[in-house]
Amino acid sequence: MKAFMDKDFLLNTDTAKELYHNYAETTPVLDYHCHINPQEIAENRQFENITQVWLGGDHYKWRQMRSNGIDEYYITGDAPDREKFQKWAETLDKAIGNPLFHWSHLELQRFFGYNGVLGADTAEEVWNLCNEKLKQPSMRVRSLIEKAGVTLICTTDDPADDLKWHKIIAEDETFSVQVLPAWRPDKAMNLEKPDYADYLKKLGDAAEMTITSFTDLKTALKKRLAFFDEMGCRASDHALEYVMYVPADENELESIFAKRLAGEQITREEELKFKTGFMLFVGAEYAKMGWAMQLHYGCKRDNNIGMYNKLGPDTGYDCINNYAPSSQMADFLNALNETGALPKTIIYSLNPNDDEAIGTILGCFQNSDAVGKIQQGSAWWFNDNKTGMIKQMTSLANLSLLGNFIGMLTDSRSFLSYPRHEYFRRIMCNLLGDWVENGEYPKDMKKLEKIVKGISYNNAINYFGFKLEVK
Amino acid sequence: MKAFMDKDFLLNTDTAKELYHNYAETTPVLDYHCHINPQEIAENRQFENITQVWLGGDHYKWRQMRSNGIDEYYITGDAPDREKFQKWAETLDKAIGNPLFHWSHLELQRFFGYNGVLGADTAEEVWNLCNEKLKQPSMRVRSLIEKAGVTLICTTDDPADDLKWHKIIAEDETFSVQVLPAWRPDKAMNLEKPDYADYLKKLGDAAEMTITSFTDLKTALKKRLAFFDEMGCRASDHALEYVMYVPADENELESIFAKRLAGEQITREEELKFKTGFMLFVGAEYAKMGWAMQLHYGCKRDNNIGMYNKLGPDTGYDCINNYAPSSQMADFLNALNETGALPKTIIYSLNPNDDEAIGTILGCFQNSDAVGKIQQGSAWWFNDNKTGMIKQMTSLANLSLLGNFIGMLTDSRSFLSYPRHEYFRRIMCNLLGDWVENGEYPKDMKKLEKIVKGISYNNAINYFGFKLEVK
Amino acid sequence: MKAFMDKDFLLNTDTAKELYHNYAETTPVLDYHCHINPQEIAENRQFENITQVWLGGDHYKWRQMRSNGIDEYYITGDAPDREKFQKWAETLDKAIGNPLFHWSHLELQRFFGYNGVLGADTAEEVWNLCNEKLKQPSMRVRSLIEKAGVTLICTTDDPADDLKWHKIIAEDETFSVQVLPAWRPDKAMNLEKPDYADYLKKLGDAAEMTITSFTDLKTALKKRLAFFDEMGCRASDHALEYVMYVPADENELESIFAKRLAGEQITREEELKFKTGFMLFVGAEYAKMGWAMQLHYGCKRDNNIGMYNKLGPDTGYDCINNYAPSSQMADFLNALNETGALPKTIIYSLNPNDDEAIGTILGCFQNSDAVGKIQQGSAWWFNDNKTGMIKQMTSLANLSLLGNFIGMLTDSRSFLSYPRHEYFRRIMCNLLGDWVENGEYPKDMKKLEKIVKGISYNNAINYFGFKLEVK
Repeated sequence: MKAFMDKDFLLNTDTAKELYHNYAETTPVLDYHCHINPQEIAENRQFENITQVWLGGDHYKWRQMRSNGIDEYYITGDAPDREKFQKWAETLDKAIGNPLFHWSHLELQRFFGYNGVLGADTAEEVWNLCNEKLKQPSMRVRSLIEKAGVTLICTTDDPADDLKWHKIIAEDETFSVQVLPAWRPDKAMNLEKPDYADYLKKLGDAAEMTITSFTDLKTALKKRLAFFDEMGCRASDHALEYVMYVPADENELESIFAKRLAGEQITREEELKFKTGFMLFVGAEYAKMGWAMQLHYGCKRDNNIGMYNKLGPDTGYDCINNYAPSSQMADFLNALNETGALPKTIIYSLNPNDDEAIGTILGCFQNSDAVGKIQQGSAWWFNDNKTGMIKQMTSLANLSLLGNFIGMLTDSRSFLSYPRHEYFRRIMCNLLGDWVENGEYPKDMKKLEKIVKGISYNNAINYFGFKLEVK
Repeated sequence: MKAFMDKDFLLNTDTAKELYHNYAETTPVLDYHCHINPQEIAENRQFENITQVWLGGDHYKWRQMRSNGIDEYYITGDAPDREKFQKWAETLDKAIGNPLFHWSHLELQRFFGYNGVLGADTAEEVWNLCNEKLKQPSMRVRSLIEKAGVTLICTTDDPADDLKWHKIIAEDETFSVQVLPAWRPDKAMNLEKPDYADYLKKLGDAAEMTITSFTDLKTALKKRLAFFDEMGCRASDHALEYVMYVPADENELESIFAKRLAGEQITREEELKFKTGFMLFVGAEYAKMGWAMQLHYGCKRDNNIGMYNKLGPDTGYDCINNYAPSSQMADFLNALNETGALPKTIIYSLNPNDDEAIGTILGCFQNSDAVGKIQQGSAWWFNDNKTGMIKQMTSLANLSLLGNFIGMLTDSRSFLSYPRHEYFRRIMCNLLGDWVENGEYPKDMKKLEKIVKGISYNNAINYFGFKLEVK
Repeated sequence: MKAFMDKDFLLNTDTAKELYHNYAETTPVLDYHCHINPQEIAENRQFENITQVWLGGDHYKWRQMRSNGIDEYYITGDAPDREKFQKWAETLDKAIGNPLFHWSHLELQRFFGYNGVLGADTAEEVWNLCNEKLKQPSMRVRSLIEKAGVTLICTTDDPADDLKWHKIIAEDETFSVQVLPAWRPDKAMNLEKPDYADYLKKLGDAAEMTITSFTDLKTALKKRLAFFDEMGCRASDHALEYVMYVPADENELESIFAKRLAGEQITREEELKFKTGFMLFVGAEYAKMGWAMQLHYGCKRDNNIGMYNKLGPDTGYDCINNYAPSSQMADFLNALNETGALPKTIIYSLNPNDDEAIGTILGCFQNSDAVGKIQQGSAWWFNDNKTGMIKQMTSLANLSLLGNFIGMLTDSRSFLSYPRHEYFRRIMCNLLGDWVENGEYPKDMKKLEKIVKGISYNNAINYFGFKLEVK
């Protein structure tokens, strides 16, 4: 029997241990997609207590507390932080097999030096220990990032954002980690939303123009794209119900846009046409600039309207949407490809059943523009666990070249979440190790080193063009 | 190599063995969803031979015999029981990896003390042994239930049912196992069926009224709900194509109902609207009474029309229906939740691909009404096998709190089927044991005992409110 | 740790080794579905170099090379064969976990006696070795087939084909392997294709008649079916988007056909109706002749239009289509079954998520017409890997009788692809071995021998009626 989460956690063979400890463990971290707030890096935020860090905005944990029948008062309500922490600790006792159990303990080990087990019975001890540590300057967010070996972070930003904090961080010579923006234009695309006109005003202001047509919108976006590019942006990100393809000509798109601006109701079909037109436009722009296009799809958001009205979005009420026709995704990529306008693309579905369809779509659009030009993104959100990662990597290995996979990202709002890279690397090294130990791949350490360092870091570095490769 | 199905069957680690033998093996059984006939308990039925017990109504076995090219004469036809048994034994020889192979042998071991292997060559010996045993009074159904450690059974009953046999059993002091009804109002909902008017007559009679409107139907159902509640019912059960959400107002629902009663053809959309309205009504009633709502969906029934015309429903001709939009299920639960009318809910899909979508929908509606208020049901029917159970529990552990899972039920028509609880518990203990042995959860036997006894029995006891918890 | 791909490759237990080496290894091969060119057998083709054999037409390999960012010049372009081979070898270095890595090395071991590892560094050595060997007469295609233990091959042929090469091979007494045609009437069904009228002309010529109605088409097909039957054909094969069921009467089918021949545009619904009518017709004909009907579905083809225009079909631009309603498949099979016209049927989906739906549909139509009358085909194309095979066999074992499975086929264009049978058998024996070692099936070698030889060879032999059973 293995000890609980020791240095060989998740590494079940000698080869897995060698691969992880020799090649993965100390390789730096590129976190190319996350949701941290750059202001907190610029200001080098310090946290008051572990509840603030852990439960302040983490809807993954909130969901589990609700599953444990805990009153909202102790979750997003006004309960004292110590009591909230107790409720979380009690919840962990039931969370056998859940990634939060592992993430929490990895964070306690790596950042707080706590090697025990957090549960109802040890909550007091952990609370005191963590809060004591959090007072130290070495627990400010910049130090947390550096301690985790991160060399570069891509945040997630609206086209209208002035990227003020990114500039401040870039100009600050005391912090060497790059913090770059990533472009997320969902609000510019989602014309069905009630506040769409307000958003266009905001975007127009940022682009110093008035947006009264789809052509205007595209002009405004181009200005902002140029600005983001100048600020070092190399990736876009899209949250889509599914990757749709309902083509329409420019005149029709202008009509739909005009109808919407006139305050009329647009139909579902018009919505899909507009979004398709929008995506074809931005996709082509990304291709021109050499950016990667990240497509996140398969999520149905804000399903509990009562709680949405109380807490707003991203509070733990989203679920997998199982409608996502692979045929439309293939047609969308083909439409871009036909005009030479298909950028590097990373596809993530929230539905793990899509792994194989994605794996086969990749292969239809690969070419010599880049190594692994079309990527399947790492197991996303609800799939970000041992099962999901093994399934995604196994599917990718079966259908494509795992050796070219650009690997892990945190997708997180938390500065303590970097051990998720460690978690991923352990699982990846164990998977490769199993194949080697089972005689399915030769124990050629030179090749394996290249694969492990590639998936951990170098593939993504080269894919986005960051010039930070390690040997 | 492990011996064939010995005491450590499916228990591959020391931790798994400890968990099972110390905590799961002797914990009682709550069978909260099954299809046994309460009359047979009331009358304490005795079976004449093993063919009668095993092949009398078990469409799982019939399917496999048909897969083996066996003539229907030996399956549901007039062949002598001994010959049918031979055909079944021959079929088992091919059934490597099939749960029926394990269930059959667990039943032979636990109820008949037979530890050999049933196959074409041993059929004669097993036939004689079983039939000899079946003559004993200890093989009457009440003894079978008691021997299996069952404390409480929920049957499946129509709202029009007078629950006569439940009353007789409850009043019989010689039998201590509780046999409670569960409410299955499919016939009251399925207005597209040709015999719907006949059913309304029957239901009206039971409720001592005439049903001529949807309002009447609701009144009648309320009366019957009150009666079921009085009889100890704590759970409803629904067989749905999928969990639909096509809302309509009361006037429209009355129109659809009136149209149907007038003998007119209703459209598919009207059917979906009516069913949505029906489900919203009963869901709210369950919430008032504190019942749990079981939603079974994803089945396409009676696909072989020729055999359906000969044998009727539930004869082995059903399959997985892969159309079940998760978005409608989420919207349905939200609609109930919006009015504070969402009851405790247990979701079962026949399609294992739905595991993850279900796991994420659960989390959108959990609250402090109950611990694990929204549950994913145990791997159902075609998924009721080692693969399906491991997949369901792993998915649930990844996405929710496995420690709150209400666990297994037989869903069976057979009094010999209780070893399926044992089968489940072995698989569950082995899964937990693997995580512990792999360093993924601490070997804290106090916590593990609580989890194992919880999933085996206590969680369901507390969830339904049966006051039979074991320590 | 196991050695790289040695004699016990993929065999992880003693039982697995026994099963494979004693029962599977030397059992002959029936390749009942493939795409090899019979002309090359008739002419006993010899290859000039390994690039010609491996990269001449293998779109599986082309996809991976494109995934590696290699220019098309080195894939399907005019690069020298040695350079193409180098690019392929470099690609293999990244292909950890990919079936092509294993297939390539099995082929190098079995046909070329090379036991090293092919990669960028060994490409020169392997190139020289293979090309030297390929000069030998023992490396002509007939010898390759014989060396692989093949007793019978079914090719894939158009109804208009004159089967000239099949005749020549059958009449050639120097070659004992049977090479039979299989009937693939896709072009006769796909009336939406631009060249449909041209095809009807060709088919009419073959049937010595003019086709001007659907009735004529059926007459022509009947003539060709009779000819194929005479030539030993025992199986048909269909490539379907999905198994649709949109019934229409004969008059409507004639109208649709007439409309199409008149050059008018037909609707999507008319297309589905015609295809349903076509499939019902041919299905009934197969039943009369005792043929098996193979249904391959779930593929969206030729997604990269630019490359399709350059290279044509079957060049590596296909993907999984995730729209395939199981309800229509069940209804289609039922419609045939209702009139006693359901032939033996083998169902293959390109989407692995369909495994369980298929497994449950099988059971709805099994009867005493044949042992395992309705089969789930072996893991197809993108699923033809260790993961896909284990998933397919486990699902089949859970839902049906694995002991009756008709097993593997290459589906290949290559004469070196027979080791895929070996690969399958190793995986199958390991799966069975695991169950035995885990105490889930008794170690009864007589029963296991029957199962292993059955799945490897005898079941298919008996299913198609080839009279080549081995003991």
